[in-house]
Amino acid sequence: MNYKDFFSADTGSFMRSPVREIFKRVDLSKIYSFAGGYPSAETFPTEVFERLAGEVLHKYGAKALQYGATQGVPELRQAVSERYGVPVENIQITTSSQQGIDVCTRVLVDPGDVVLVSCPSYLGALQSFASYRAEVVGLDLSPEAGASRISRIEALLAEGKKIKFFYAIPDFQNPSGETLTLEQRSSLVDLARKYNFLIVEDSPYRELRYEGSSVATIYSLAPERTLHLGSFSKIMAPGFRLGWIIGAPELLDMIYVCKQSLDLCPPILDQYIAAEFMAGGELDRNLSKSVALYRDKRDYMLSLLEKYMPAGVSWTHPEGGLFLFVTLPEGYDTVALYDRALNAGVAYVAGSFFFPDGSHRNTMRLNFSFLATERMEAGVKLLASLL
Amino acid sequence: MNYKDFFSADTGSFMRSPVREIFKRVDLSKIYSFAGGYPSAETFPTEVFERLAGEVLHKYGAKALQYGATQGVPELRQAVSERYGVPVENIQITTSSQQGIDVCTRVLVDPGDVVLVSCPSYLGALQSFASYRAEVVGLDLSPEAGASRISRIEALLAEGKKIKFFYAIPDFQNPSGETLTLEQRSSLVDLARKYNFLIVEDSPYRELRYEGSSVATIYSLAPERTLHLGSFSKIMAPGFRLGWIIGAPELLDMIYVCKQSLDLCPPILDQYIAAEFMAGGELDRNLSKSVALYRDKRDYMLSLLEKYMPAGVSWTHPEGGLFLFVTLPEGYDTVALYDRALNAGVAYVAGSFFFPDGSHRNTMRLNFSFLATERMEAGVKLLASLL
Repeated sequence: MNYKDFFSADTGSFMRSPVREIFKRVDLSKIYSFAGGYPSAETFPTEVFERLAGEVLHKYGAKALQYGATQGVPELRQAVSERYGVPVENIQITTSSQQGIDVCTRVLVDPGDVVLVSCPSYLGALQSFASYRAEVVGLDLSPEAGASRISRIEALLAEGKKIKFFYAIPDFQNPSGETLTLEQRSSLVDLARKYNFLIVEDSPYRELRYEGSSVATIYSLAPERTLHLGSFSKIMAPGFRLGWIIGAPELLDMIYVCKQSLDLCPPILDQYIAAEFMAGGELDRNLSKSVALYRDKRDYMLSLLEKYMPAGVSWTHPEGGLFLFVTLPEGYDTVALYDRALNAGVAYVAGSFFFPDGSHRNTMRLNFSFLATERMEAGVKLLASLL
Repeated sequence: MNYKDFFSADTGSFMRSPVREIFKRVDLSKIYSFAGGYPSAETFPTEVFERLAGEVLHKYGAKALQYGATQGVPELRQAVSERYGVPVENIQITTSSQQGIDVCTRVLVDPGDVVLVSCPSYLGALQSFASYRAEVVGLDLSPEAGASRISRIEALLAEGKKIKFFYAIPDFQNPSGETLTLEQRSSLVDLARKYNFLIVEDSPYRELRYEGSSVATIYSLAPERTLHLGSFSKIMAPGFRLGWIIGAPELLDMIYVCKQSLDLCPPILDQYIAAEFMAGGELDRNLSKSVALYRDKRDYMLSLLEKYMPAGVSWTHPEGGLFLFVTLPEGYDTVALYDRALNAGVAYVAGSFFFPDGSHRNTMRLNFSFLATERMEAGVKLLASLL
């Protein structure tokens, strides 16, 4: 049977995640993996979750197993509200932060609409934008590119295109590891106000800061035009598939109606566990341990790169998060190198996957959270030996 | 700020679930609710889930908390495979059966494409079809309507429309409670083959049969062109938000790519709990208790309708599932009656919500699973007194 005729036009723009394809091919525990964005298993307080699952089922009984509100269970919205200082009406719980990206795109983007991103950008978001046939346009947020940003935007508007939103990962960006300064955030908000577009602020790593001080969220600078996405994956555990959106009630209302037909409501038992994890102080206790662990791993990773990488290779110095971004000398091709690396037993993600135009083939993203500390040296050594 | 200009064209077709809107307005525990499709809290084996959550976290540790495969964890796909006799490659785990409906529609339907349904049909599916701007066309599956079906389909094709799939709920349909006979299923398959459309078979209630014998699934009659949707909500508990799709690998592959950008993977801990719930025999033990409970509730509900409903009111006699469908004499309007009923303390869902054209305002759907048995008589009496 020929199924091609049945598929919707959107499917023609679907992109497969090269990261998820890697995971289908290899057993991560058998190689040195700097691919993926997996938190360290050491940061999962298994016994705490075991205890909380029991407590929640005792305390809430059938309520923890029944259908629940599309916006999320009140206890979790309340906990998010208290932690981040935002009214409950401005909070929608999502079935993962990836769903947050997807549902925002779904309610905002028509085929041909422009989504602005800084390049490189998160692959899962690029996949989602492509799947709705957005035109993804890179915009350089560096201070010296101010004039080029304006001419780029004005050119798009002159072509009659609608710019729906800028997708930003302001804190320890995936994949670059870089953080936007307050000035950069303010200029972005100015641009958004001047040219009337929204900002989707995706900030799953915000609380994983290892040095320096926290920069105001874009949401706090422009709450009326920002949808702020949060995630429990990096501050609790990804397996719960929970995140949240903070935004204007008028925007959240449309997202709420959309979510009804997407999956009715987020998983209920998981939400109650997350609410108790926050309310009982376990999240903070666990977070400070995770931050200490990841700070050490980042420092170690930076020292290993320093020690083993050949001359001409450079990398970012992230103040937090899970990634750093490596640039090899011109002429190197990390996509072509990939199979050889995998066969040798080391994995990374080619940097060009994070550029909508597939450029920058001499770059790679390295994750430093997942691989056990005692295996990191051998991994970096092996990777460096292939260059 | 005016947000309207930002919304995608699809949002213009979003429908709010009137059922979920009711739940926002009233506390279900304070009224006699025949609305909703909630399973009875009595069917949730809370202690079993408590034990399994602990066991799973012991057995799988960090694996139960980490990201997992987009297709679902291997243990759960294996358990579904064994229970339903379908190869693992033909199984995609979904984050709820509602997501199953949504993702099938997303990969198959372009605006203006036709989705055929039998009327009335499930509201959440109608919402999803509307949200992709499908043209939803009712097709009468009764044996005597054979000629009208063919002329309806041929008229659509003559207008140049693409019929993508027939959406069927063959077992104890939501909302009618009716079951398609083997002959009806076969004729549907014949039509699908003749006019080359797919069938989405949504069967969340299939295992809740209280009398008669099981009819072959549509999938078993036409595996090459059927996507069969299953749900853990009615055989385990809705709060886990888990379901599955069985279908041809070529179709599932597109759904898999789509699901990557929807939410990466279904909730992991929940999937392991479901896998253990099946593998350890708890699902079967619990299901037989649920079936016995619901059989009694259905019988009692039918006897109460017999006892209290005024002359001229008729209702379906479901062989399983959670619903029956009531038809009042012509001229009655259950939409108009609704606020009065809610104020009096009894809830139902107006039948017209299940008809894409909003017709049949003299009908209502009654759920008999949720309300505690000892409150059913007072509820039916109150409802009957309003007619």
